[in-house]
Amino acid sequence: MFAEAEADPSLSREEFKKHETRLRTALVKAQYARLEAGERALLIVVAGIDGAGKGATINLLNEWMDPRHIKTHGFGPPDEHERQRPPFWRYWNALPAKGRTAIMFGSWYGALLFEGARKNPDVQRLDALAATIRQFESELAADNVQIIKLWFHLSAKAQKERCKRLLASPDTAWQVLPEDLLVQKHYERVRESGHHAISRTDSAHAPWVVVPSADDGMRAVTAADAVLHALQRRAIKVPSPAVAGAGQAARRNVLGKLDYSETIEKEEYENRLTAVQGRLARAMRDPAFRHRSLVLAFEGQDAAGKGGAIRRVTRPLDARHYEITPISAPSDYELSRPYLWRFWRRVPRQGRVAIFDRSWYGRVLVERVEGLAPPAAWKRAYGEINDFESQLVAHGAIVLKFWLAISEREQLTRFREREKSPYKAFKITPDDWRNRRKWPKYLSAANEMIARTDRPSAPWHIIATDDKRLARLRVLEHIVGAVEKALGRE
Amino acid sequence: MFAEAEADPSLSREEFKKHETRLRTALVKAQYARLEAGERALLIVVAGIDGAGKGATINLLNEWMDPRHIKTHGFGPPDEHERQRPPFWRYWNALPAKGRTAIMFGSWYGALLFEGARKNPDVQRLDALAATIRQFESELAADNVQIIKLWFHLSAKAQKERCKRLLASPDTAWQVLPEDLLVQKHYERVRESGHHAISRTDSAHAPWVVVPSADDGMRAVTAADAVLHALQRRAIKVPSPAVAGAGQAARRNVLGKLDYSETIEKEEYENRLTAVQGRLARAMRDPAFRHRSLVLAFEGQDAAGKGGAIRRVTRPLDARHYEITPISAPSDYELSRPYLWRFWRRVPRQGRVAIFDRSWYGRVLVERVEGLAPPAAWKRAYGEINDFESQLVAHGAIVLKFWLAISEREQLTRFREREKSPYKAFKITPDDWRNRRKWPKYLSAANEMIARTDRPSAPWHIIATDDKRLARLRVLEHIVGAVEKALGRE
Repeated sequence: MFAEAEADPSLSREEFKKHETRLRTALVKAQYARLEAGERALLIVVAGIDGAGKGATINLLNEWMDPRHIKTHGFGPPDEHERQRPPFWRYWNALPAKGRTAIMFGSWYGALLFEGARKNPDVQRLDALAATIRQFESELAADNVQIIKLWFHLSAKAQKERCKRLLASPDTAWQVLPEDLLVQKHYERVRESGHHAISRTDSAHAPWVVVPSADDGMRAVTAADAVLHALQRRAIKVPSPAVAGAGQAARRNVLGKLDYSETIEKEEYENRLTAVQGRLARAMRDPAFRHRSLVLAFEGQDAAGKGGAIRRVTRPLDARHYEITPISAPSDYELSRPYLWRFWRRVPRQGRVAIFDRSWYGRVLVERVEGLAPPAAWKRAYGEINDFESQLVAHGAIVLKFWLAISEREQLTRFREREKSPYKAFKITPDDWRNRRKWPKYLSAANEMIARTDRPSAPWHIIATDDKRLARLRVLEHIVGAVEKALGRE
Repeated sequence: MFAEAEADPSLSREEFKKHETRLRTALVKAQYARLEAGERALLIVVAGIDGAGKGATINLLNEWMDPRHIKTHGFGPPDEHERQRPPFWRYWNALPAKGRTAIMFGSWYGALLFEGARKNPDVQRLDALAATIRQFESELAADNVQIIKLWFHLSAKAQKERCKRLLASPDTAWQVLPEDLLVQKHYERVRESGHHAISRTDSAHAPWVVVPSADDGMRAVTAADAVLHALQRRAIKVPSPAVAGAGQAARRNVLGKLDYSETIEKEEYENRLTAVQGRLARAMRDPAFRHRSLVLAFEGQDAAGKGGAIRRVTRPLDARHYEITPISAPSDYELSRPYLWRFWRRVPRQGRVAIFDRSWYGRVLVERVEGLAPPAAWKRAYGEINDFESQLVAHGAIVLKFWLAISEREQLTRFREREKSPYKAFKITPDDWRNRRKWPKYLSAANEMIARTDRPSAPWHIIATDDKRLARLRVLEHIVGAVEKALGRE
């Protein structure tokens, strides 16, 4: 894989000049064609042997293309803010809009390469890291983010010579970083690590290109050529991670068997509400919660009482510690990124609570039923969502999902009541009546969603809400139970 | 000011019910009218005696209005991320879009109230804090963000009783915070502090309302009424902070006296460039820089070489430590907030470099010349910009501004060259030719801008760029000089 690059090939000055004119012209043209089409973003991952001239190549790409439409992200060790969220949070946040290009330097390969270069790499950890990367990259590729990965490579001898040359003058010595010198000691291990990382993560939709880097011209031309080809390439079909059988009638009709008739007396409700809010208040103030977070997703039919339930949950919370995000149709800004981007942005830091009034499940509910997402997209979404929630849970988040279910008859009563009330009328729109007529379709989508995404680590709770009070109590009791359990307070 | 509230007035259950229906109906109606007009945002600042029921009122407003268009921000002590930027950074980031409402809890009054409640408040510090707040609020008010400030107040006796009542049960005891109990000890000082904060910061465009809070109904109705009046009120003219005489022909014609003829030989350039880049690399790696930051704004005529100069500056920087932001016409997303919002978002953390390819000076250049901003807005901008930069400098940022000046003749040569080059053609658009025809207007705007915003703490450097190489060297030398001086490396 590295034989060609380790021969340290070079280009003559004339050859380089010829390529330069060709590449600059073609790169700018391709970049503008991409921008105009506005269909796909491009991620350029920069990795490789330290001291191979990665930084110089990033500068060069910014010079040869229109830098106003390229964003370079350099990721160092995660800062305080980043450590508070799952590791991939910062990469999701940095995704470019469709049509645009981002260069990722010190990317999600950091941990994999670091582990691989250790004296005795932990193979299980390597496998896990590589699997997470493959999942991430195929999700992006399926959602209009193209990926090209450059591995800058040169022989141990050439690397050493390059460092020596730069160190000779105090004015160029800064170009040599401490890690560049370490390479000389551990060249074989770094090389092995790169080799393994590439074999584990090379794919048609996110390919690696090895860039011979001993010669400045050769490095520049090979890297620029790889970027050019990526820009010119049509979208590649990503091997479908769609769930087998998705979209077929759900086998379990969990929502069909609900008992809507149970009720609770007002007085009992008020006593129990005060008690459970007290428990929640105490649990959230437990020092152990400072290293956890709480993510609540509320879904359900219109008028099932999501807003009212959420207000009962937030009452005992400190206003500085929670955020409610109401989810409606995505803006253009959001539409130009992968679907989960806007939810990743809202992932809470440790010690905080994020409440979603409707959520990422819109993909397999409203977007599916209304035909807003193509079947391939919403079928793929079950896996993407499970992956998203797993990353939250792995980082210590307590993830709970609520389906608030109302009977058709009770919904009608509430719709009519809303229309009559001077201060509730804003809650009812023609959309609500339209959705009501699609009741069976929504119900079947919800049934399938619950069947495919209900997991012990991020469970669904289905709550009958014809009696609002009882529903609110149950929501709170599920939350308190889960939080107390997670904190070992039981 | 507090006499009425300290009489702890209350409402009967019937009176409250009557008000509730009226207020809920009117609030929702007013909120929707605001949203539809999409002209002004509303900020509701919540402050007052601890344990007066501020949190309960926030919940109530969210219940009585449509909570999907209200965002509640609770600000605690600044976190790691926030401490890395000027104190007002987090408030700028939280500004709502036009038409929307935000509740600010634990707001920019925190420091002022805290200082005022100390045993021996530092009067100078109080004055300075109040002045910063007045400046901030009048900038927002002038830029379509309306502000209403609620001070929740009750007598010492009522505060004590409220805490006692809540503490009586473990299920409501959590509503009493440690600071609520402290109030009982220091009621007089807290009261005094509130009194002073209100007198120092009350204004027609950002008024305070004292909310009697001993009785839940009275508190709810008074607060909701205040918000309702704010929503219904027309925009108030903010006392103009516009600079006297702004827009008149500049007295100093700094740009008219430039010498464009100086040149440098290629070899000397390359040697000096390597040397100055080396100095910059070493300065930026100085541990002392970890507590500073560097903010560079590049302005100048088209084809004056901003991009080329910026690339020479970034070469010696670590890609993980700088960010280049090219500024073009604002998006709808940005237009719906105060002008400086999008620049505040890009303020670098400590140890980082932010480079702006065009900047906040667009307000007094292109927006002025092209009539994109009304005269009142760009005249006001000189003061707003000076204030923005002062906040950066006060927090340790090194702020430098460059005007790259090209002669009319050289610009023509470069335009023609760009049109002919296959890979530079993208750099030239009809806009560039149009701007060229407005040369004198842009020059006069730039002259005035420099005269009004050139200050020792955030200086302008005017660089003749007919010889690109010399211009790049000079830019770098100014930067290195300023950084070395700031870090005490000279």
